[in-house]
Amino acid sequence: MQDINLGLYFLSELVGTAMLVLLGCGVVANVILGKTKGFGGGTLMINWGWGLAVFAGVLVSAYSGAQLNPAVSLGLLIAGKITGAQFLVAVAGQMVGAFIGAVVCWVAYKQHFDDEPDPGNKLGVFSTGPAIRSYGWNLVTEIIATFVLVFVIFAFADYGDVQVGVPGGLGPLTALPVALLVVGIGASLGGPTGYAINPARDLGPRIAHAVLPIKGKGSSDWSYSWVPVVGPLIGGALAALAAPVLLHLVQTVS
Amino acid sequence: MQDINLGLYFLSELVGTAMLVLLGCGVVANVILGKTKGFGGGTLMINWGWGLAVFAGVLVSAYSGAQLNPAVSLGLLIAGKITGAQFLVAVAGQMVGAFIGAVVCWVAYKQHFDDEPDPGNKLGVFSTGPAIRSYGWNLVTEIIATFVLVFVIFAFADYGDVQVGVPGGLGPLTALPVALLVVGIGASLGGPTGYAINPARDLGPRIAHAVLPIKGKGSSDWSYSWVPVVGPLIGGALAALAAPVLLHLVQTVS
Amino acid sequence: MQDINLGLYFLSELVGTAMLVLLGCGVVANVILGKTKGFGGGTLMINWGWGLAVFAGVLVSAYSGAQLNPAVSLGLLIAGKITGAQFLVAVAGQMVGAFIGAVVCWVAYKQHFDDEPDPGNKLGVFSTGPAIRSYGWNLVTEIIATFVLVFVIFAFADYGDVQVGVPGGLGPLTALPVALLVVGIGASLGGPTGYAINPARDLGPRIAHAVLPIKGKGSSDWSYSWVPVVGPLIGGALAALAAPVLLHLVQTVS
Amino acid sequence: MQDINLGLYFLSELVGTAMLVLLGCGVVANVILGKTKGFGGGTLMINWGWGLAVFAGVLVSAYSGAQLNPAVSLGLLIAGKITGAQFLVAVAGQMVGAFIGAVVCWVAYKQHFDDEPDPGNKLGVFSTGPAIRSYGWNLVTEIIATFVLVFVIFAFADYGDVQVGVPGGLGPLTALPVALLVVGIGASLGGPTGYAINPARDLGPRIAHAVLPIKGKGSSDWSYSWVPVVGPLIGGALAALAAPVLLHLVQTVS
Repeated sequence: MQDINLGLYFLSELVGTAMLVLLGCGVVANVILGKTKGFGGGTLMINWGWGLAVFAGVLVSAYSGAQLNPAVSLGLLIAGKITGAQFLVAVAGQMVGAFIGAVVCWVAYKQHFDDEPDPGNKLGVFSTGPAIRSYGWNLVTEIIATFVLVFVIFAFADYGDVQVGVPGGLGPLTALPVALLVVGIGASLGGPTGYAINPARDLGPRIAHAVLPIKGKGSSDWSYSWVPVVGPLIGGALAALAAPVLLHLVQTVS
Repeated sequence: MQDINLGLYFLSELVGTAMLVLLGCGVVANVILGKTKGFGGGTLMINWGWGLAVFAGVLVSAYSGAQLNPAVSLGLLIAGKITGAQFLVAVAGQMVGAFIGAVVCWVAYKQHFDDEPDPGNKLGVFSTGPAIRSYGWNLVTEIIATFVLVFVIFAFADYGDVQVGVPGGLGPLTALPVALLVVGIGASLGGPTGYAINPARDLGPRIAHAVLPIKGKGSSDWSYSWVPVVGPLIGGALAALAAPVLLHLVQTVS
Repeated sequence: MQDINLGLYFLSELVGTAMLVLLGCGVVANVILGKTKGFGGGTLMINWGWGLAVFAGVLVSAYSGAQLNPAVSLGLLIAGKITGAQFLVAVAGQMVGAFIGAVVCWVAYKQHFDDEPDPGNKLGVFSTGPAIRSYGWNLVTEIIATFVLVFVIFAFADYGDVQVGVPGGLGPLTALPVALLVVGIGASLGGPTGYAINPARDLGPRIAHAVLPIKGKGSSDWSYSWVPVVGPLIGGALAALAAPVLLHLVQTVS
Repeated sequence: MQDINLGLYFLSELVGTAMLVLLGCGVVANVILGKTKGFGGGTLMINWGWGLAVFAGVLVSAYSGAQLNPAVSLGLLIAGKITGAQFLVAVAGQMVGAFIGAVVCWVAYKQHFDDEPDPGNKLGVFSTGPAIRSYGWNLVTEIIATFVLVFVIFAFADYGDVQVGVPGGLGPLTALPVALLVVGIGASLGGPTGYAINPARDLGPRIAHAVLPIKGKGSSDWSYSWVPVVGPLIGGALAALAAPVLLHLVQTVS
């Protein structure tokens, strides 16, 4: 039985979340910023881009089980799969990673940010915003979408039921299912709020947007910023509470 | 040899079908209701959304083999893979689940339902309708499409040939094939009727449409409602009868 | 060691190819015939539709190794993986299956065929035609695209190197790779001729187009019909000859 | 323990890269050259086309571990997974293969090249070009995108840690992950430069463009040609240096 190295645990979540946010914000930049090759590529392209961002993020975050999302980590904490220390370290890694990923995305698309006239599009690359603003309903949508994410992950991932130091969870074998799940959630429940479903994915880049010297940027829309933090945390917690009641998994005989 | 717990069996079908319908109706809402992020996202996006809705539904419905569809359950009954009691319990779970999934979808898209002027689009989120109305031909299309669904599922799933209490069927390992199959059926045979191919998926949400206080809603189109119930049941039954004649499966040597 | 039952072999190719053509022609109908739900769904939707048609076809054709294509069967014959009798029986099953699949597709889309004014679109559902007609160049494109299909299949499928009666080949485990391969070939090499890459897929439906009482149909374009037969056969034969020279497969240590 | 046959190693990289470039350049031809079936098919179609081009290329290049990219090979060299001789042989095979693949693509789309009036579109089929020209920023984008490619590959592939003569690496089992990764990188980071992320993929076809008798062709844009060579090499090298620091892989208990 090995001890978990919390430094590597932090690093693993940082690296995975940076990858997730770099590719996730990247596809939005490609579709909405002017003069890109992917301009106007459409919603399905954004859905695939975010799903495959999760895919890549999971693959590079094996040590910590690729939580990559405070809502997932909260669910794991509630379910007793990780400790409070692991939770705090994971969330810290996720926040730093999300910030770094957003910065690198800005660098990769630097000229297109400079060239883009609409400040709203610039923010849209970093963080989500509602299609129709209504904090209550927006919160409800984020709760539902994140519930789906965490609830389904609990149905196929294997967090904690493995040796210490061998975290399992969203390891390489589950990168594809979680990627497809995120494509599906984006396509199906992303309509009203743009599916943050992850506090780190939304808040980290929003902080990056606020501090980076982005040419012609506008507001970071802090008044909305709590919705994609609080909603996903509620959704993840509810999923963790519902899973033992609603999921009765059985091993298939292969 | 364990006994199947019919309460858990019911719950499993309920949860899986609710997930299926939430995400399936969700993608239609995203594409056709006004002001969503996915507005005008296109048919292929709807096909992927429904396919991945099946993916998520299967993953959370392992206990009962993720039938999620009365046409599939009828096929299993005819094939002698499940008992009459299992069939009735499964269909009841599917109907309740489909209703719940549709309600949650409405909640997630509440503001966009309120904002949408066209009552036909509102109903279109919940239930299918024909491109060219003709009950006979519409029925034929639903029979063919559901035949394909159930026939191909019989070729790769493993319903009933496993220990009692360990239902197999569409367990996690088969979530991806059935999801891709549904993407394909939608793209290929969804043109005339919108591929209900599942009585619960269509009737449950239609009942929800009828009873929910949806602002500015129109008719629930009950005159068409029998087609996506009867057609899929006939298609599923025919597939179960055809499978032993037409499928001669062999184990590949791996 | 079991004998292969040539009747089941024929049936397996018939069923698989019927499924392939039903779903493959279906997606074209959905995208190009008027008033369908998928009208104008685009090329990528057609590519996915055909790829997933292959997926479904492979899944229901395990007994014979899911050749589904005379060009594949010819490659297997040249490679010594199947006998002359198996080749003839397989191709016969493929032709009958392709005809049946096309008929069922027509039935599923009957009203949309009746409603469509353009005879060219009607034929386009059944069979391929060149973007720029030039028999020589069209033939070259079909040869190249089919070479890719058969050559890559030879790299991952396992035809014949299994017990008699247990054909292996494109069994369920390889349904996904071959489906993705067909999506890719369609997207990449389908531009000039619409990627028949399969004599049965093109000729069977063309015969169906000629004999079915399709309202307002035009020519079946027999002058082009030899190109998507001869080109794929040449491409498949070249791939079978090239494979032992160019492919040096190794077993990965897992 | 077997010796690696450098001739087969060369051939394996040649065949795989030819397949990659044939299908990759092919999808661009299908989407941007006039009168093709896929004209205007969109960015997501190009992303899938390139991803599945990688898929096919990996499947036919098992002997050498399907590096298919000098940036990957450089990463493997730095990481000590391959020798200097293997590196040189692999890159030579990749360059020859890329040239051949581009020639075959031109042949497959010959009439559409002849018919296309815009010389820029002709070059665009062969090689990448920047959306907004700025060698420094373009280089940065290529470095970032290739870093992602090689870094994530290092997280799931198994180069060199296998028997000699049994190269492992991107064998058949990893064809799907790397294909999806390339779809994702294209969607997310392809906006500014069209994601060469592979010196051979860009330079080989550019040489083909320069030497082929393409009707009405324009400049091969040699002034930009160093960017998609140098950028990917830097990105691949950085990834190989970062991987042991940032990736702490663990075996999941299955």
